Amino acid sequence: MSEAQPADALDHAFSKLPADFHELAVKTIKGLSMDAVEQAKSGHPGMPMGTAEMATVLWSRFLVVDPTTPDWPDRDRFVLSAGHGSMLLYSLLHLSGHGLTLDDLKNFRQWNAPTAGHPEYGHAKGIEVTTGPLGTGFAAGVGMALAERFMAHRFNREGHNVVDHYTYGIVSDGDLMEGVSAEAASFAGHQQLGKLIYLYDDNQISIDGGTEITFTENVRARFEAYGWHVLSVDGHDAAAVAAALEAARADTARPSIICARTVIGHGAPSVAGTSATHGAPLGAEEVAATKAGMGWSDAPFHVPGVVREGFGHIMSDRGEARRAWERRMEVYEAAHPELCAEFRALSGGALPEGLFEGLPTYEDGESVATRKVGAKVLAALSAAHPTLVGGSADLAGSNGVAIKDVQAMQPGTPSGRAIHFGVREHGMAGICNGIALHGGMRVYDATFLVFSDFMRGCVRLSALMGLPVTHVFSHDSVWLGEDGPTHQPIEHVMSLRMIPNLHVVRPADPRETVGAWKHAMTRTDGPTAIIVTRQGLPTLAGSRDDISQGAYAVWEAPGEGALAGILVATGSEVSLCVEAAAALAEDGVRVRVVSMPCWKAFEAQPKAVRDEVLPPTIQRRLSVEAGTTLGWAAYAAAQHGIDRFGASAPGAIVARELGMHVDAVVARFKALD
Amino acid sequence: MSEAQPADALDHAFSKLPADFHELAVKTIKGLSMDAVEQAKSGHPGMPMGTAEMATVLWSRFLVVDPTTPDWPDRDRFVLSAGHGSMLLYSLLHLSGHGLTLDDLKNFRQWNAPTAGHPEYGHAKGIEVTTGPLGTGFAAGVGMALAERFMAHRFNREGHNVVDHYTYGIVSDGDLMEGVSAEAASFAGHQQLGKLIYLYDDNQISIDGGTEITFTENVRARFEAYGWHVLSVDGHDAAAVAAALEAARADTARPSIICARTVIGHGAPSVAGTSATHGAPLGAEEVAATKAGMGWSDAPFHVPGVVREGFGHIMSDRGEARRAWERRMEVYEAAHPELCAEFRALSGGALPEGLFEGLPTYEDGESVATRKVGAKVLAALSAAHPTLVGGSADLAGSNGVAIKDVQAMQPGTPSGRAIHFGVREHGMAGICNGIALHGGMRVYDATFLVFSDFMRGCVRLSALMGLPVTHVFSHDSVWLGEDGPTHQPIEHVMSLRMIPNLHVVRPADPRETVGAWKHAMTRTDGPTAIIVTRQGLPTLAGSRDDISQGAYAVWEAPGEGALAGILVATGSEVSLCVEAAAALAEDGVRVRVVSMPCWKAFEAQPKAVRDEVLPPTIQRRLSVEAGTTLGWAAYAAAQHGIDRFGASAPGAIVARELGMHVDAVVARFKALD
Repeated sequence: MSEAQPADALDHAFSKLPADFHELAVKTIKGLSMDAVEQAKSGHPGMPMGTAEMATVLWSRFLVVDPTTPDWPDRDRFVLSAGHGSMLLYSLLHLSGHGLTLDDLKNFRQWNAPTAGHPEYGHAKGIEVTTGPLGTGFAAGVGMALAERFMAHRFNREGHNVVDHYTYGIVSDGDLMEGVSAEAASFAGHQQLGKLIYLYDDNQISIDGGTEITFTENVRARFEAYGWHVLSVDGHDAAAVAAALEAARADTARPSIICARTVIGHGAPSVAGTSATHGAPLGAEEVAATKAGMGWSDAPFHVPGVVREGFGHIMSDRGEARRAWERRMEVYEAAHPELCAEFRALSGGALPEGLFEGLPTYEDGESVATRKVGAKVLAALSAAHPTLVGGSADLAGSNGVAIKDVQAMQPGTPSGRAIHFGVREHGMAGICNGIALHGGMRVYDATFLVFSDFMRGCVRLSALMGLPVTHVFSHDSVWLGEDGPTHQPIEHVMSLRMIPNLHVVRPADPRETVGAWKHAMTRTDGPTAIIVTRQGLPTLAGSRDDISQGAYAVWEAPGEGALAGILVATGSEVSLCVEAAAALAEDGVRVRVVSMPCWKAFEAQPKAVRDEVLPPTIQRRLSVEAGTTLGWAAYAAAQHGIDRFGASAPGAIVARELGMHVDAVVARFKALD
Repeated sequence: MSEAQPADALDHAFSKLPADFHELAVKTIKGLSMDAVEQAKSGHPGMPMGTAEMATVLWSRFLVVDPTTPDWPDRDRFVLSAGHGSMLLYSLLHLSGHGLTLDDLKNFRQWNAPTAGHPEYGHAKGIEVTTGPLGTGFAAGVGMALAERFMAHRFNREGHNVVDHYTYGIVSDGDLMEGVSAEAASFAGHQQLGKLIYLYDDNQISIDGGTEITFTENVRARFEAYGWHVLSVDGHDAAAVAAALEAARADTARPSIICARTVIGHGAPSVAGTSATHGAPLGAEEVAATKAGMGWSDAPFHVPGVVREGFGHIMSDRGEARRAWERRMEVYEAAHPELCAEFRALSGGALPEGLFEGLPTYEDGESVATRKVGAKVLAALSAAHPTLVGGSADLAGSNGVAIKDVQAMQPGTPSGRAIHFGVREHGMAGICNGIALHGGMRVYDATFLVFSDFMRGCVRLSALMGLPVTHVFSHDSVWLGEDGPTHQPIEHVMSLRMIPNLHVVRPADPRETVGAWKHAMTRTDGPTAIIVTRQGLPTLAGSRDDISQGAYAVWEAPGEGALAGILVATGSEVSLCVEAAAALAEDGVRVRVVSMPCWKAFEAQPKAVRDEVLPPTIQRRLSVEAGTTLGWAAYAAAQHGIDRFGASAPGAIVARELGMHVDAVVARFKALD
């Protein structure tokens, strides 16, 4: 049980409200949700109507947030994993004074309104996570709870509880059908995340019909098998929901799921309990009938004074909780000044001073697999950054993220910093999003590049939310060899480049790999994918450990005279091109080799910089990348790559057979017009 | 219980073998696996060594396959979901006479050998599915079992059992950690797939260490919660494994999972039971010690005569089972000639005659959402094709795959043709791969385009295996509107185009949508993604219902004179470009509009055809697609698209704000050099 916020203290504020507060609040949420969807002619009224009861219990009696300081580090987190029910959240954010106005609700799903179709992180205060893609919010909540426990064990001291909050969420049938939630649930059970509490909106309705058509598993038993604390309630019985939340809070050794039977579209006389309420407005007639049935004003967007005042009272009480925390921080600061300063700085997102001072350096010519460079870099960063955590989907050694002497993050060692995610790529990425959202920490995950396909849903969300998660993808091309086509990326580097706001860095050598990590750690507004090799790559004489320009000339033929062209490449193909360029130079063909580790960084450069690297006057250009050529036409009129699946054989043989060798590049360049 | 192959009949063949056959066979498999990995200096010896015992029981006493007719439709299917243990399968295929030679085993993981690092479908007879990406084989097996039940109910008649086989598999810890297997397992339990039997290689070892580091859930209880029949055995006790397989076969109302405790690298004196045996050769010394310990010849690739002869005897017995099936087919043919002919034709992959005769047609100007066109097309195809099945991940109506009067495929109606996959995109794609692999059927799946991210792993496998699965992706751009950026595809069309052998078709109008389906149904060597709109699109005067050329001029300015340029587009942007081109024509700027629904089909055309559509002399070209511009430089020097995340608002407003409107295209084209 959380010492800071015992349930009876929370209930104290609620108990002083008028007797009809709860009922009116529930009806208000139902009314706002119906009205906003009606006005937008678009949205999902059924979910907010079915969950208004339990959400009101949670927000009025348990959830500790302070609208005056929405980013207070020790607030409880609330995750609406069933993001299509966004009007539930927007109603609560409006009523609780988080800044959403009635006009915002009236502009639900309209251009530039903060009330998007699905909750968008950053669009309004109190939206803790972007949800909508089902299951991903579930995983993010697991990450938040993991982060809370880490931060508590890292920073709390005897008598000083500065990190002590719960992560609550509402999840739906759809969330629980998705594999990403299954992965995250198994992980959360293993990790014994006792301060994670989900309300499962068990309304037995999916879009295509009742859940009996495809979702007949025993959800209770499944979560018990994961090691969760499972409770069952009638989701329309406020007292039962409150009791279940109390019981869930009391069990701090296991995550809790409260299976709440609800009726979707609760209160709608004709369509409650049917999928008709799922994804479309109820229609004016049904809205009127619903309001009449619950004795509600037919004025749209009706909010009774008692509800507004009641939420004001509750939030003011929560503000007192936040001020109590501030006072505890003062005592903490006096007792542990350095720790407190560190906590404040990290919670503010600051990077430790001297973070990059211990990074490894490489001599020209030194050959190391870039995944191994990554491991060295991570060791140095981990030594300098106290809350940098991460891990792999069961490939830590292979990915270069196994760090010596770093303790595993386990139930018995919650402030360990190496996370064993298991073979659960999608869950991993979702959990990392949650860790980043929680704040105070930096996080990375890792797997083979080809398995980025398994986690793309959550990688995209890290980009959409602008979270500085680092995704490490090793074994980046057919050079991985024997594992064959199922494991050899072809389309992956380029397809990741297309995700807006995701910086994809494919370093050419050890030095650029150091630069890739510096780039990733320096980013504050989005994720970085670092693409590393299985095989060794030589450190190039002209390479840089600062890749922030995105592309640069790494080699140029010695001597005088005009350039005959440019070879532009990334990763392992840069050294290949340097060899090819040297061979061309011996034949009197002078070319420049451009290393382009990060397209997005390059595209952000002023035109003058871009034109210096790739002069418009030199159009005789060949791109070389051991993957799809699709996309390279943007930078090179001719493209050398691999537009087929790979094959199983030793890496050098596969590469040779598929044209990734010096002779092929030389011949190809010479054949250009 | 299968009538065709009662277990005692199977055991009969086995019972006639020498007493030491089983033990020697197990040792042979261990030896071959160790030797091949040693020779390749690469691979996973631990898994085959740990599962040799139970795999031998399965193959020698239960699995009904006939190496002389490896594509016999009524054979049992064997799925090695733990594909890294490929030497287990290759050993068994060699011993059972499926055509793999000892030299093939010696060439394990070498260029052009059929014995790739992971089993590759089509590389050798008896490889039923490409595996390696964990969890995907599990899902494919579910699809195979679903297909078997469908075909049995569709074609068997009283007294005629022509479809009656089991699907067996071996799955690992890693398979069971993956979300894709969780989705497929929940689905299989709901579907009560009683003839699906998995041996779970519970060796408690993952690559990063023991499973206790992250996989501590109760797997037994989880599968019971899914509705599976769960058994537990010592995986090194052959009699217990056989008894469990008997019990699993006897329960035809539930899929079975036999949790078999095994020791990874069983028999290796120093490293058995550790992750050291997982992904690396044992080393000559350990191999020698292992062989000595089990009293085995130290000659590499040793196969005792008794093992070879024993497998010959068993397979000859299985051949008799196949001949008995042929005889049953003759009786079936006499009793049900038309049904039999249909069965034979569909099993051979033939399309029904007149498949395309009932397809809808559209008048010029008629405006229909292409997803709705898809629904009409599917209804017509379903009427003409008796084993075309498919469905959606809980978005059947939205995706345009809900077909009137088509029965759902459920335990009580197994030959229904509408599959409710639930909100399980990745499992859905894996299951569809299994249905396609089973044969006799055609299959499609469907979801929103943005959620193609959730199923990319298995979409890629459909392309790698060359399976004619049709993936329907609706809501194909920001035009979907209010659901906002989490639901609006940006990078998805282009990133799917990059997957080798996946044909991505984004039709411009209703007529091209008909063509897209014809293209998909006609393909035999790979999957097709059909990308359809939420919003209505007008039927264009110049459009085609045959898109096999991939691209063509759909509109050209009337009158004489040279063209000023080309607008090249796909999907909804084609009609936009036709409008823009008409506006340009009014200004005296004559352009051609090229619709390019399928890049790969276009790229397969002779140069003359391509040059006719996009004359090299006309380089003033603008591409227009409501998604990432990355990639379009291949066809157009200038690109008009959306290189950012979308936004929530009515579709037309989002499209306008993001530049997807006539004025913007006209202005952009005019501004080109």
